[in-house]
Amino acid sequence: MFIKNTWYVAAWDKEVGTDGLFARTIIGVPVLMYRKQDGEIVALEDRCCHRGAPLSVGRREGDCVRCLYHGLKFDATGQCVEAPAQPRIPPQARVRTFPVVQRHRWIWIWMGDQDQADPALIADTPWLDDPGWRSEDGYIHYDVNYLLICDNLLDFSHLPFVHPTTLGGGADYAASQPKVERLDNGVRITRWALDTDPPPFATAVKDWGGKVDRWNIYNFTVPAILLMDSGMAPTGQGAQQGEREGAIEFRGCQAITPETEHSTHYFFAHPHNFAIDQPQVTRSIHQAVVDAFEEDREIITAQHRSLSLAPDFKMVAFGIDAALNQFRWIVARRLEQEAAATRAVIPVVAVQTPAAPAVRV
Amino acid sequence: MFIKNTWYVAAWDKEVGTDGLFARTIIGVPVLMYRKQDGEIVALEDRCCHRGAPLSVGRREGDCVRCLYHGLKFDATGQCVEAPAQPRIPPQARVRTFPVVQRHRWIWIWMGDQDQADPALIADTPWLDDPGWRSEDGYIHYDVNYLLICDNLLDFSHLPFVHPTTLGGGADYAASQPKVERLDNGVRITRWALDTDPPPFATAVKDWGGKVDRWNIYNFTVPAILLMDSGMAPTGQGAQQGEREGAIEFRGCQAITPETEHSTHYFFAHPHNFAIDQPQVTRSIHQAVVDAFEEDREIITAQHRSLSLAPDFKMVAFGIDAALNQFRWIVARRLEQEAAATRAVIPVVAVQTPAAPAVRV
Amino acid sequence: MFIKNTWYVAAWDKEVGTDGLFARTIIGVPVLMYRKQDGEIVALEDRCCHRGAPLSVGRREGDCVRCLYHGLKFDATGQCVEAPAQPRIPPQARVRTFPVVQRHRWIWIWMGDQDQADPALIADTPWLDDPGWRSEDGYIHYDVNYLLICDNLLDFSHLPFVHPTTLGGGADYAASQPKVERLDNGVRITRWALDTDPPPFATAVKDWGGKVDRWNIYNFTVPAILLMDSGMAPTGQGAQQGEREGAIEFRGCQAITPETEHSTHYFFAHPHNFAIDQPQVTRSIHQAVVDAFEEDREIITAQHRSLSLAPDFKMVAFGIDAALNQFRWIVARRLEQEAAATRAVIPVVAVQTPAAPAVRV
Repeated sequence: MFIKNTWYVAAWDKEVGTDGLFARTIIGVPVLMYRKQDGEIVALEDRCCHRGAPLSVGRREGDCVRCLYHGLKFDATGQCVEAPAQPRIPPQARVRTFPVVQRHRWIWIWMGDQDQADPALIADTPWLDDPGWRSEDGYIHYDVNYLLICDNLLDFSHLPFVHPTTLGGGADYAASQPKVERLDNGVRITRWALDTDPPPFATAVKDWGGKVDRWNIYNFTVPAILLMDSGMAPTGQGAQQGEREGAIEFRGCQAITPETEHSTHYFFAHPHNFAIDQPQVTRSIHQAVVDAFEEDREIITAQHRSLSLAPDFKMVAFGIDAALNQFRWIVARRLEQEAAATRAVIPVVAVQTPAAPAVRV
Repeated sequence: MFIKNTWYVAAWDKEVGTDGLFARTIIGVPVLMYRKQDGEIVALEDRCCHRGAPLSVGRREGDCVRCLYHGLKFDATGQCVEAPAQPRIPPQARVRTFPVVQRHRWIWIWMGDQDQADPALIADTPWLDDPGWRSEDGYIHYDVNYLLICDNLLDFSHLPFVHPTTLGGGADYAASQPKVERLDNGVRITRWALDTDPPPFATAVKDWGGKVDRWNIYNFTVPAILLMDSGMAPTGQGAQQGEREGAIEFRGCQAITPETEHSTHYFFAHPHNFAIDQPQVTRSIHQAVVDAFEEDREIITAQHRSLSLAPDFKMVAFGIDAALNQFRWIVARRLEQEAAATRAVIPVVAVQTPAAPAVRV
Repeated sequence: MFIKNTWYVAAWDKEVGTDGLFARTIIGVPVLMYRKQDGEIVALEDRCCHRGAPLSVGRREGDCVRCLYHGLKFDATGQCVEAPAQPRIPPQARVRTFPVVQRHRWIWIWMGDQDQADPALIADTPWLDDPGWRSEDGYIHYDVNYLLICDNLLDFSHLPFVHPTTLGGGADYAASQPKVERLDNGVRITRWALDTDPPPFATAVKDWGGKVDRWNIYNFTVPAILLMDSGMAPTGQGAQQGEREGAIEFRGCQAITPETEHSTHYFFAHPHNFAIDQPQVTRSIHQAVVDAFEEDREIITAQHRSLSLAPDFKMVAFGIDAALNQFRWIVARRLEQEAAATRAVIPVVAVQTPAAPAVRV
């Protein structure tokens, strides 16, 4: 069960090329994406309305796609415009389309009610294509439900245990509780470490001449978007009050998109605003993040296997679960709202979509 | 759910050798086949009545088979005739037998009520062993429900799309609707292309001196047997009126036999009556068919995966579905008839088959 | 469904080393085993009470284990004694422990009610570590329900069919019915072959100067422990009356422990009291048993596959099933007793274990 009326990240912009067909399943629905000749992205349900063959094994014909089973041709609005030996195409011969928006290197998709697909609701990630920031594109595929990954990202007390040699976090990191604030559609987590030693990667790019103040502040919002402001500045200049002169900063952007109930897409990048003319710094930051995320995947996949064997397992709540429990509560409320809305409109839907007469397996 | 009271093709005759044991699952039932010393084929349920071990991992002893778990020996009627340390064998110690008929190279099996197993109901395929016709034996295993393969064979409008370089069909092939007639237990499909160019394989075996008339006429009958009459003759001599002088002809024989709900056996051959002294012609025709059938398997398997993800998917019917919809209707009606007949005799069955006392996992 | 209030063999003693963590699933429950610094074995549920991560991918810290997801630390009683950023640990933050007893090389575990875990109920296997007997340790993993293996061991009439070249048993072996006696918690099976030729392995270790009397007597008791007394003595001295002077003897010890409903652990050894200073004799006896058990695994796995396809299959009972039917009846009765006892205490359990407040996938 997934939230439908929300923007999910469906792909990095470069994944959907200027020709060809790109298939990806989003919240259980197979989606075909391609670019029209004017560059605009089309997203169609990847299943021919005739006998269910995937359109993504078909072929591009201009801005249209042809199913290579029986040759039905669909235009970019999903309408079937050609069928063999059939001069008149029934209007219901169409596949579903999904609103898509390309913004700051990510392609966002709306899987719910098209009337509600307001691009103003898309989370802002300008650092992904701002020339003052540099990052590499990250993607990992997970074989677990997306909420287990959300849990992980909502509780950084796991850092010293899962990532002792990569992200680490210091001996005192897990010991301090971050501030957790409720947002409209998520939570905001704030953690400051004042008057602390700069970590090795930071001393490599800058002479700090002493201690630093470090921060790590992120919003985690529906459906599962993490936007993080982290960095450090020389101690004493008032970073906590907003003075970031001489600081080095990151703007982590992460999007977790369910593929199915038991698998997930994970898009991420960690733009930084220092040493942006040194590709090897960007590379090394990216690699550290990838290594850490692989560590996460290992323990989360083990957790998933363990939970699969024990459907009645009752988790014991700890203080560190505050943020993840709040986020799961928000998700549950959104699902309830959507279920209630669907129940309300069922009679209307039934009238709009008469059952097709075809027989099937 | 499968039709039971019908003849299925179980094997090519050569698959069941003069010694040894041959196992194949037919409509979900594991079947053991072997030949008695007089050449007659025996078909037994491939599951020892004692503890369920497969008899096919046992051994032949004359016309009997011995289970190599505890040594029970069964004769060709399925009766247990020997059991260790047990002088008297209970009469209910037997495995089920199935009527089998070997005819024209195919071994047919009847999985339903033995009293109804009339060999006169077997479809006729004399071209498979007539010396005036030549073909090679074909078998493909599919991991989809058999009805998806039937659909494919009941709508040749897919030819130019799935088989552009193998069977093809010409640009105008998909554009013309074939004639579809209802038969008692299936459909008959007729397609003529008049005054057309002979295809490359035909010019290679004969100088036509001009255009040809081509035909493609097949019956597709329950359970899923396709018998096709196709060929071409010089234009103008009246092939459509039955004058086949100077024609080259094929008699395609195809049998689709469900293995389980999600897998299928596919037996086929394409006998031809020309160049029968040139094995390389037979070989090349066979290979073209095999290549085309592999193309079918690819798209049908993709369709199967797509449909598996969407149990509520409603297909939109097109004109090209006329034949397949009729055939599916016939299958559905046969299944209903068999279900009704089974409900009617349940009390009798209950009396005839007392529950065995054994305990099991 | 498995009997809970009984001792299962969980491991060979050497499998649980002096450091490190050993994971094994017993009757569907993942168990972590390790040795405290004083050598005592600890068995904990292998699933952190917090978010379900397996503790076995965590790390040892003295006699404790730390979960390497969020760093919760558990002591050998299963109590959580440390959690990040949480000074007070809730008492319900604990994982389940299981009574374990190491005895004669086997580690026994009790998966049921701890109050009933009486070590006096453990089957006695002194031959596994008695210096007067020699054997090698055996372990096989099976992908079938454990009862199919019990069936096999309760009916040795399969010997000449499954093991013609390994254990064999002679042409007349299957023909004679053994004596089957009911025990309190299992069955006792006795088979004597008098005045028979010594088998090849026996003539290799001793000059018998004539015929021998052979015996094969074993108890098969709940949950699934086979203890066998077998051997041979010169004919005429009265072995059947207890005179074992000059005999060679075996004391087979076998324990079948369910892993899940569809997989099983099989522990075994075949101590012998002759040629104990010749390791190659021990080796050769062990190898013959392993080879035979692999033959068993092949036929039982084939049987399992066959039965999986036919959930309604009714087995036909034969005389050779007497022992296995009795044993299955005992198992069924034990399961009913435990189910009845559980129903009786449900209200109490509900009071003792309040539902944890945590949300989960």
